[in-house]
Amino acid sequence: MNKNPYITLFEPVKIGPVVTKNRFYQVPHCCGMGHLRPQAHAAMRETKAKGGWGVVSTEESEIHPSSDLSPYAEQRIWDKKDIPALQLMTEAVHSHGALAAIELAHNGNHSANLYSRLPVISPVSQSIDLVYPKQTKRMNKKDIAEFRSWHRKAALNAKAAGFDIIYVYAGHGMTLTQQFMLPEINNRTDEYGGSIENRVRLTRELLEETKDAVGDTCAVAFRFAVDELKGSDGMQFFEEGRAVVEMLAEIPDLWDVNVSDWSNDSLTSRFEINEGYQLPYIEFVKSLTTKPVVGVGRFTSPDLMTSLVKRKVLDLIGAARPSIADPYMPNKIRDQRVDEIRECIGCNVCVSSDNFAVPIRCTQNPTMGEEWRRGWDPELVRPKKTDQSALVVGSGPAGLECAMQLARRGYQVVLSEAKKELGGRVLFESSLKGLSAWKRVVDNRVYEIQQKNNIEVYKESELTLEHINELGINNIFIATGSSWRKDGVGRSQRKAITGLDEVQVLSPVEAIRESNTIQEPVVIYDDDQGYLAGVIADHLSSDGHAITFVTPASVVSPWTVSTLEQTRIQESLLKQKVKIIANKTIALAKGNNLESRCVFTGDKTNIACKTLILVTERSPNDTLYNQLIKQEKGSRHIQLIGDAEAPGLIADAIFSGHLAAENFEASEQEIEKAIFMREMPQLKQN
Amino acid sequence: MNKNPYITLFEPVKIGPVVTKNRFYQVPHCCGMGHLRPQAHAAMRETKAKGGWGVVSTEESEIHPSSDLSPYAEQRIWDKKDIPALQLMTEAVHSHGALAAIELAHNGNHSANLYSRLPVISPVSQSIDLVYPKQTKRMNKKDIAEFRSWHRKAALNAKAAGFDIIYVYAGHGMTLTQQFMLPEINNRTDEYGGSIENRVRLTRELLEETKDAVGDTCAVAFRFAVDELKGSDGMQFFEEGRAVVEMLAEIPDLWDVNVSDWSNDSLTSRFEINEGYQLPYIEFVKSLTTKPVVGVGRFTSPDLMTSLVKRKVLDLIGAARPSIADPYMPNKIRDQRVDEIRECIGCNVCVSSDNFAVPIRCTQNPTMGEEWRRGWDPELVRPKKTDQSALVVGSGPAGLECAMQLARRGYQVVLSEAKKELGGRVLFESSLKGLSAWKRVVDNRVYEIQQKNNIEVYKESELTLEHINELGINNIFIATGSSWRKDGVGRSQRKAITGLDEVQVLSPVEAIRESNTIQEPVVIYDDDQGYLAGVIADHLSSDGHAITFVTPASVVSPWTVSTLEQTRIQESLLKQKVKIIANKTIALAKGNNLESRCVFTGDKTNIACKTLILVTERSPNDTLYNQLIKQEKGSRHIQLIGDAEAPGLIADAIFSGHLAAENFEASEQEIEKAIFMREMPQLKQN
Repeated sequence: MNKNPYITLFEPVKIGPVVTKNRFYQVPHCCGMGHLRPQAHAAMRETKAKGGWGVVSTEESEIHPSSDLSPYAEQRIWDKKDIPALQLMTEAVHSHGALAAIELAHNGNHSANLYSRLPVISPVSQSIDLVYPKQTKRMNKKDIAEFRSWHRKAALNAKAAGFDIIYVYAGHGMTLTQQFMLPEINNRTDEYGGSIENRVRLTRELLEETKDAVGDTCAVAFRFAVDELKGSDGMQFFEEGRAVVEMLAEIPDLWDVNVSDWSNDSLTSRFEINEGYQLPYIEFVKSLTTKPVVGVGRFTSPDLMTSLVKRKVLDLIGAARPSIADPYMPNKIRDQRVDEIRECIGCNVCVSSDNFAVPIRCTQNPTMGEEWRRGWDPELVRPKKTDQSALVVGSGPAGLECAMQLARRGYQVVLSEAKKELGGRVLFESSLKGLSAWKRVVDNRVYEIQQKNNIEVYKESELTLEHINELGINNIFIATGSSWRKDGVGRSQRKAITGLDEVQVLSPVEAIRESNTIQEPVVIYDDDQGYLAGVIADHLSSDGHAITFVTPASVVSPWTVSTLEQTRIQESLLKQKVKIIANKTIALAKGNNLESRCVFTGDKTNIACKTLILVTERSPNDTLYNQLIKQEKGSRHIQLIGDAEAPGLIADAIFSGHLAAENFEASEQEIEKAIFMREMPQLKQN
Repeated sequence: MNKNPYITLFEPVKIGPVVTKNRFYQVPHCCGMGHLRPQAHAAMRETKAKGGWGVVSTEESEIHPSSDLSPYAEQRIWDKKDIPALQLMTEAVHSHGALAAIELAHNGNHSANLYSRLPVISPVSQSIDLVYPKQTKRMNKKDIAEFRSWHRKAALNAKAAGFDIIYVYAGHGMTLTQQFMLPEINNRTDEYGGSIENRVRLTRELLEETKDAVGDTCAVAFRFAVDELKGSDGMQFFEEGRAVVEMLAEIPDLWDVNVSDWSNDSLTSRFEINEGYQLPYIEFVKSLTTKPVVGVGRFTSPDLMTSLVKRKVLDLIGAARPSIADPYMPNKIRDQRVDEIRECIGCNVCVSSDNFAVPIRCTQNPTMGEEWRRGWDPELVRPKKTDQSALVVGSGPAGLECAMQLARRGYQVVLSEAKKELGGRVLFESSLKGLSAWKRVVDNRVYEIQQKNNIEVYKESELTLEHINELGINNIFIATGSSWRKDGVGRSQRKAITGLDEVQVLSPVEAIRESNTIQEPVVIYDDDQGYLAGVIADHLSSDGHAITFVTPASVVSPWTVSTLEQTRIQESLLKQKVKIIANKTIALAKGNNLESRCVFTGDKTNIACKTLILVTERSPNDTLYNQLIKQEKGSRHIQLIGDAEAPGLIADAIFSGHLAAENFEASEQEIEKAIFMREMPQLKQN
């Protein structure tokens, strides 16, 4: 075997009193598990350690009930009672030779304290960062002293729980220390406000006190957002961001640097396709400190990673999302299986699950979040039970994943696809403006399928009932996808829009494929309220079409609030002169007009329209399945999966395909067990 | 003692095989505790039983992981593992001679299954009822059969958990059975769709199967929404609503009838001031069945309740919100202490807490949701520890509650108020259009204070530092409230709006008190985004002012989504011709114009304005407190409470006042214990 070109990435790095075995560093990231689901949390983090990450961190960890993030499921270290749950994680992570890090957090006005009902605290009296008419209590000297003592206590408890690295956290626009640093917020006139020295005072105290408390055996890391990306309205990396690094340079044992707020740090590929996009902001840091520096930027290229270390830009390669898409990335680089890396597509479905306070999901990695409940692992496959063959009809995300996973398990698989290329809806969606990285969902899987000799692929082969019967394969997975409705039935109305024969109606797919037929004025009607209508509008308006965007929602693509993209989407459409008409349904078409109705009052307005692009609901393509079931005598396993069963996100389809492959030949009991698995509260008084 | 005029309300009622001791029936209501907080849940329900309710129900209880309402904290009866948690409640309720009821629920497309990841099921393929681009699986015959078996199993488990009454639930626009009933949704062509007989088939089967499974010892209740309040677009009580009652008349042991959806059932006083507002819809039911009927409508008047029973409109007086505002209402009526009833103000803060997935809160009853964590009870007071006196400065919600609760505990209390009348902000807010019922917060407390001889009230007495020192009272609670800022600093901008001297600027209070000075064009700028700006707009536009409403939010009063009022508010403003300009901040005033900025693009627009009403943030009135603290040598107890500490909802202020009174003279240890109390997950594999 050749010498590994990425050997640099596997050098140990000393971080204060501890040493990480390599340069792969899973920075703190949310996961919707936290204090509500400690077993699931430990199992998920363990998979990262198993996959080779040298450091594995928690999500933000509330240090006190005055930083109560309910109903979000983040981590907690309120007091000693949290230690046993956190120990589940540290022990799991240590068992694979990795270091465990904890991100201590006090969220200031970003916490709402809806459970604890303590006053929300921050440097000044201001609104809490939740749409709730409540303000913070301006912290007085006693409050500041108390806060410092809570942080110290939390650090000691973290040490007792077995953590090797303990964070002080000033980032993401959601921490008290950062709120003290920013002049826009902090207008105090005491020694904690005013000059930058004063505004940094609290952070310095926390760093020193944390080192004092636990620095003998634990490294103290500092996570710091060097730039808010607000221009001169906020902190900038070449001004105060730099000044902070200069002032604190040698105090922490590790600098973990990024940009703020969360939507900037976790920028989606739709708005930034390049990995390493944070480098221009953070690369100055290493020149100011002798301590190791970790940074992020959706890194999946080992060449770039190696170059960054060699060029002394970073000492440690930080990752949140790439470690979710592929927990085994370090091992794959170590073993020179770089082609097998499952690359993050930058879709932020992971972020959305945290925002919905449910366990983390990932488009690329359907095992993510299922480590405890189902015992899934992205690389460890449960082998086939018997020598069965399987037919998978359709190669969209569900079919592709199902076929691949069945083949991984050792079954003989036939995958048939009606079109010329594998990929189904992913091919279409990844052809749209901003979504090219989504193609990795197909590319990674097609690559793996090509390496296998137990899977036969038939393209341009639209199977009928008769074909299937002739094939004689007894296990049939139908992944025929769904089609966008063209009658206007959607979230807001169960009745079809009347008069649709009076305008040209296009589905999203037709609108792109047959865009030359579009006649202006063109209206996109979004009653799906997910992401697609916004993407179509962006794509077509970039191509020069003058778009009117009508939606019953109050904003464009409301679902994308959960992926941190909504404001960027609406901004980009407005800048492209898309006309947005919110809070309106479309009731009927007449002549070259649509009649819209205000969702509040029912008032009617006319909207000029020759071409109407409907993004409302989808119809499952289940005809073939229904035919099969109708003639079935009961001897064959016939299963509908993905959008053909229930249309959803690409992530939902991938999960459905994976689940079907994993459950194949499992006992009813095994399947049921996973369905009912959940973490439940203790019933004894505590 | 006279014969109780309400004796009728205390007659026992037979419900199938069980008998309730009286006619007070706490219908199922959500509480943000559910499966996440079983101890808190049991303690909260127990307080209702203690207060005299004959029947105490759970919230909706998910019968299966395919009805997974995560992240909302509702009840669960997925399998036998849930029995012990539910038993905590049934045992607590039984210990006070009340019956325990459980509302079995499958939520169809209203559940999102974000935790369980099972396909969401419903009668047809349709969008799920969450802004998430995912659709349901259309249930086939096998799915329907499985669903029925889950419901049966859940009924058996509910019986095992000790419930006396078991619900079949078709209401609130959020249950599978209702989705099957409604022709707007259910366009199936099999025996479960088409005719009303077919659409009701599933409900009939559930009722019969539940009776068959548990009817020997448990009553089977049917909760049914007779009208959707959508006119001819939905079910109506004189058409299919009536037909359903006719068809199923004698099958359930109890009819629990209301209107749909949730916002109609839990209508706020802002939009319906009268109790019993559901009667016109539900009163027909009793004429069609011999079984007892329970209905709701924010009942707090025992005269009306008695009359309803005597006139045979209802057999049982249902209550959700009134039982939250006063769990002891039945006992107070029984004991002829009607004047002491703490009346629900119809603000839906209770609903908002469920929508935020945190334990239930109530404006009127600060003990609600605190039964387990703090051992609070609205009537059982912990007596004073020593013979201390206390001074409470300010009689807004925090001061009024604090003074009253200190007096209840037996302390000698002085309450001083600068104005002529007690009540502070509540007096102002309850004078606004739609909020008159909020005055009950003051009226109920003032009444109680008047009955006490250990509380002295001084009105029109603005206390200075010197006065307080002269009084010589060593325990001082400062409840001086807050004032609306007039510089434009709010959620969206930390900098003051420039040029405000070029327009007339009014605070919300000034806008009402000095409305004769308003010059058109008048702009209300809402960067509070709670409820108040919308109320002011409603009030002033009803008074004939032409209002322009500017907000950085996408909708008017976004917080009120959580109280189920948002669409009603925006509808009413639009109908009153209020001009709504959403998604805009105000940056500066110049001449008779405001310069606004689009929150997405920063684009500037001018808005004509002579009078600008700013509803942005509040400044705590803490000068007096700061003066006291500055000269304090440490011998006195001086505490800032309510809006003067941290501005919030009236409910937050009441809670703050109550907490201060309860914590007075408590040990640090007792206080800390409650702060850290929480229910935590089991750490053993299950």
